[in-house]
Amino acid sequence: MPPKPITVQRRIVARSRLFQVEAVSLRFANGVEAEYERLTPGAGSAGAVLIVPILEGDTVLLVREYAAGTDRYELGLPKGRIEQDEEPLSAAARELREEVGYAAARLTPLRSLTLAPGYLAHQTQVVLAEQLYPDSLEGDEPEALEVVSWPLSDLAGLLTCEELTEARTIAALFMVREYRLS
Amino acid sequence: MPPKPITVQRRIVARSRLFQVEAVSLRFANGVEAEYERLTPGAGSAGAVLIVPILEGDTVLLVREYAAGTDRYELGLPKGRIEQDEEPLSAAARELREEVGYAAARLTPLRSLTLAPGYLAHQTQVVLAEQLYPDSLEGDEPEALEVVSWPLSDLAGLLTCEELTEARTIAALFMVREYRLS
Repeated sequence: MPPKPITVQRRIVARSRLFQVEAVSLRFANGVEAEYERLTPGAGSAGAVLIVPILEGDTVLLVREYAAGTDRYELGLPKGRIEQDEEPLSAAARELREEVGYAAARLTPLRSLTLAPGYLAHQTQVVLAEQLYPDSLEGDEPEALEVVSWPLSDLAGLLTCEELTEARTIAALFMVREYRLS
Repeated sequence: MPPKPITVQRRIVARSRLFQVEAVSLRFANGVEAEYERLTPGAGSAGAVLIVPILEGDTVLLVREYAAGTDRYELGLPKGRIEQDEEPLSAAARELREEVGYAAARLTPLRSLTLAPGYLAHQTQVVLAEQLYPDSLEGDEPEALEVVSWPLSDLAGLLTCEELTEARTIAALFMVREYRLS
């Protein structure tokens, strides 16, 4: 593998309340220079958590929520931002209470995922939540989320739902099924 | 499921060469209003394709490529933008030739994935590529990509690679393993 390209120049070219776009000029080991744009986390952003809550046997809990990016309702695993100075497992515990109304006696960090490493710095920590008990916390969602339960043994059936499209959710469900079988 | 929220206002708040941020005010069915920001594809963007190339038996071909978003080399399935007026399968065939140097006699669209539907409109079409034969096309990469082959039967081993982090790649590998077993 060649050494990493050298950053020749970098500057912020666009900024909004939540996003920041950085333009970077890179020089590769072979001397070729190229321009890239990447989204960098704004101040106070520490990535996200995605939680796989398992209720008894092999029932997984998902949420149906309006998604502003695709402008439709999406079915996916509960998730949320890690707040500044918050540990990933604390963020997972908080989001689990806010979005599905459960706490977990056992939280296991499984893996960190990227979304589109070519232009997003964003990282998501996948956390398995087991030994659940009812315990809810008021979230900041504009409307109540619908909690959907599904047997993990019928992952093929779940994948036929048109509302389930998120790569992180699909990757995490397969990973947890594999983890629990091993 | 409640009816979709109504868009009260929307406007572009930031724009760069590749990205465009739209701020939207939405009114939910329960009357609550909320503000969102989402990244919308710029002009001429038609999403992306992610290709799962299978060479003989169960060998999958991946590429190791510098990723500007995470600023490190990442191992993932070949992928790329769908150009304007290009069909997803044509884009998959082109990227396959450019990034791994093969053409496929059989291309099967499997599923469309989203990355972060809460704030990204972006869609990626996953395409299975089989019956491969050598046929390369010059790409626009600043340096040659390293092609890595791996038996799909050892997906667990592949997932231990620290350079493999992309949710789309992991989801697509599991989906293809499932698809070929069924």
